[in-house]
Amino acid sequence: MNGAESLLETLVACGVDTCFANPGTSEMHFVAALDKQEGMRSVLGLFEGVVTGAADGYARMAGKPACTLLHLGPGLANGLANLHNARRARVPLVNVVGEHATYHRHLDAPLTSDINGFASPVSGWIRAPETADQVAQAGAEAVAAACRPPGQIATLILPADTAWNEASGAASPIAPDRPNAPSDEAITAAAHALRSGESCALLMNGAALSEAGLELAGKIRTATGARLLADTFVTRIARGAGRVDVERVPYFGEQAEETLAGIQHLILVATKAPVTFFAYPGKPSELTPEGCDVHTLAAVDEDACAALAALVDALDAQVLDPGAMAHATTGLGTGPLDPAAIATSLGHLLPEHAIVVNEAATSGFAIPAMTAGALPHDWLDLTGGAIGQGLPTATGAAIACPDRKVLALEADGSGMYTLQALWTQARESLDVTTVIFANRKYAILQVELMRVGAGNPGRKAMDMLDLSRPDLDWVALATGMGVPASRATNMEEFNQQLARALATPGPALIEAVI
Amino acid sequence: MNGAESLLETLVACGVDTCFANPGTSEMHFVAALDKQEGMRSVLGLFEGVVTGAADGYARMAGKPACTLLHLGPGLANGLANLHNARRARVPLVNVVGEHATYHRHLDAPLTSDINGFASPVSGWIRAPETADQVAQAGAEAVAAACRPPGQIATLILPADTAWNEASGAASPIAPDRPNAPSDEAITAAAHALRSGESCALLMNGAALSEAGLELAGKIRTATGARLLADTFVTRIARGAGRVDVERVPYFGEQAEETLAGIQHLILVATKAPVTFFAYPGKPSELTPEGCDVHTLAAVDEDACAALAALVDALDAQVLDPGAMAHATTGLGTGPLDPAAIATSLGHLLPEHAIVVNEAATSGFAIPAMTAGALPHDWLDLTGGAIGQGLPTATGAAIACPDRKVLALEADGSGMYTLQALWTQARESLDVTTVIFANRKYAILQVELMRVGAGNPGRKAMDMLDLSRPDLDWVALATGMGVPASRATNMEEFNQQLARALATPGPALIEAVI
Repeated sequence: MNGAESLLETLVACGVDTCFANPGTSEMHFVAALDKQEGMRSVLGLFEGVVTGAADGYARMAGKPACTLLHLGPGLANGLANLHNARRARVPLVNVVGEHATYHRHLDAPLTSDINGFASPVSGWIRAPETADQVAQAGAEAVAAACRPPGQIATLILPADTAWNEASGAASPIAPDRPNAPSDEAITAAAHALRSGESCALLMNGAALSEAGLELAGKIRTATGARLLADTFVTRIARGAGRVDVERVPYFGEQAEETLAGIQHLILVATKAPVTFFAYPGKPSELTPEGCDVHTLAAVDEDACAALAALVDALDAQVLDPGAMAHATTGLGTGPLDPAAIATSLGHLLPEHAIVVNEAATSGFAIPAMTAGALPHDWLDLTGGAIGQGLPTATGAAIACPDRKVLALEADGSGMYTLQALWTQARESLDVTTVIFANRKYAILQVELMRVGAGNPGRKAMDMLDLSRPDLDWVALATGMGVPASRATNMEEFNQQLARALATPGPALIEAVI
Repeated sequence: MNGAESLLETLVACGVDTCFANPGTSEMHFVAALDKQEGMRSVLGLFEGVVTGAADGYARMAGKPACTLLHLGPGLANGLANLHNARRARVPLVNVVGEHATYHRHLDAPLTSDINGFASPVSGWIRAPETADQVAQAGAEAVAAACRPPGQIATLILPADTAWNEASGAASPIAPDRPNAPSDEAITAAAHALRSGESCALLMNGAALSEAGLELAGKIRTATGARLLADTFVTRIARGAGRVDVERVPYFGEQAEETLAGIQHLILVATKAPVTFFAYPGKPSELTPEGCDVHTLAAVDEDACAALAALVDALDAQVLDPGAMAHATTGLGTGPLDPAAIATSLGHLLPEHAIVVNEAATSGFAIPAMTAGALPHDWLDLTGGAIGQGLPTATGAAIACPDRKVLALEADGSGMYTLQALWTQARESLDVTTVIFANRKYAILQVELMRVGAGNPGRKAMDMLDLSRPDLDWVALATGMGVPASRATNMEEFNQQLARALATPGPALIEAVI
């Protein structure tokens, strides 16, 4: 077998069975090896941002890495923004990047670039084998590195001759590291704070937001009155009926300060102390209230659920009611077609075990509240602020969970970044319903322009924040990529179109003109 | 004035009057400053690959840099592939990247990333001012650095507080370096080779391919019988009636070897010795024939036209006929709709002084020959192999040259990478006619899969090289972004649609289903 075949066989042996790909000439032996490796599914994306975002969404839902296949430095470059998001999501991801043959690199052919340089800002691990014999072992190490808690991007750079030369065979899987156990001191300190009678809050992300983690957190809340908070943007959270609901730290700093005000002990579970997304002139960047003690119950690489369980034990809260949500919605949204009415309908119509991918930006502010009592679902956020994550992540989540409906809530400006994901949804017949919130502007920037004190904008400035002239026609765009689409201009149309899309398997897109 | 205002005023004073932008919160003061700076045009792209590719196309046609405005590391990352192409094109480009406020960076907010790391592989110059007072001078230096011969990418990283804090004023322009003069030794050696009676060829790129450079090269050919060759992919070349035509080094190595066979003296003018685009098992990567002497008449940073003029003088060829092309076309293409017939029609219908942007890939092989005798035009190639350059580059070229028709020849696979460029063409009413060669596959990869000896591909491999299931509908995609579009399924339709688009100002797209 050649190096590429040894890599594919190794990856499959390590449990990696899905490859999101956009290959080029230097990756042709990898592509040919896909044919021979029955255990590996390969999914084509027509742009690399789709490939990497899909690998992120896959990892969030499958709980294990997919691999990518990218074409040299520029192919990697096109996928970097969603790798940035995946890095922030702390998901495992094996990022395979083709490279010129080892003896061709020094010639500086047109596609030659510093692949290591491009990969470094997003990768926790990078290797570039120099011989075919090293490829399989590097593949096994890449999977182990990707799975190192809490999860990271492992980039494997594959020179073409290491793929086509004869290799000695596959490598054995390497047992992945387990997350570190939380320290007894951290648990004792958190329990002490929670028993102090002072105002306490748990701020959570990562595994703490799984159904099991939240149930434990709910028991702690019942036992102590502590507030339960989650980061503004989370990798994945279990929500809806039967799950413990948590408050989110709001996006805007002023609101976040209000939410956090009065907390005397902030207990971090798989996250860091809160900071604002951006700096604003004359406003604080750090959001921890003055005088508040910050306790790290579990660092991001530690076992958050074990830490919460130990804390439940320390508080003798094992048998307490976690205070899960009842199923409760307020019916279909009515009145004008706007984000609030849409949020109401989403809560009412969301199917059981749906996967909600949220890149709705300003149009999505009402949705968390209106879906808290919906049927149980998982919710995935834009974790790194690099817009263009939603449609690809929805694509990858649908590949990971073929039996669940995926609902992608997408701002029009963000959606345009990686709209090519719709084609992959059509080719793979993925069960994704996309709602485009077509407000025809970068609405967040119109707010932010004011908030940063940049003055009264004129036409030239506003043109940079505006998606009109011409209006985007998302029905045409989706149809052009093979996804059935419709446009809603009032709530009756929206409700009907959403109900139909959610009831029909396969991809569909609704442009909500708000 | 604040730092952003001082930067804008400096850029305009330095002759930079066009900004291709996709801003975010951290760039809002720059956006607000755009309003106050009448000398700067700002053009919105809905994806950063559009922004950077447009800046490349603009520079190729304007002969001076535009600036970009990109949002932090991920915004830069999305623009990197076309910056890679711009680097290979050796164009001047001022790449402005927003950054978190200096005091916010260490907090590792979600959008924080290693911007310097992302920028390094494509940038010849990088600066990140730490105070508002440093911004204007850094801007002036960025322009000078961008213009350093032959042209390069100067990346200016702009922390938000350096944009919003008070600055002391604009900086003065810095006189750009002139290209180095070619050495007398190089001219003497080239003249000696050309007079030797042995087989000689000039291999050219850069300014050598301007109308003036080619005329000089033509005189050298007349005087000595030397062959005139250009690189496979060139930044810009003057072509058509009245211009001196040159042979291109073919893309495929075997054909390139054939083209170069027998050359005893290869004289390089603003380029390097030829190498294959990719490595292939058992085949050479270097294309210079064995025993051939390689002479560098002008290095890439030297004045290629001055070198050619000096060589003309040395050969006493000043008054010789350069052998320019006569105007000659073979009428409209007929028969089945295929790349050859389309190429024939393109040669016949190409308007005078059109700008041809070529990213037609395998569908474009016949076009150079069929347009050699067309009306005079400029031709821009995909220089760095990172597909997705054509539509953005056409956009930027149209901004630079509002009085000239731009014809973008675009492969469907490549076009999908940065299709958002069509929206910018619509918003700015740019005079761009796009022809999509819709063969519904990555045809080059189907060829390359065989050429690299990757074996007989099965269905799973071929699926990765195929754009069907579903077919892309380019008429819908273009219409969805406000560009009038039509589909041609035979040559009669194609000829009619092309003639109409070329006769009508404004953007138009023709999907040629080949």
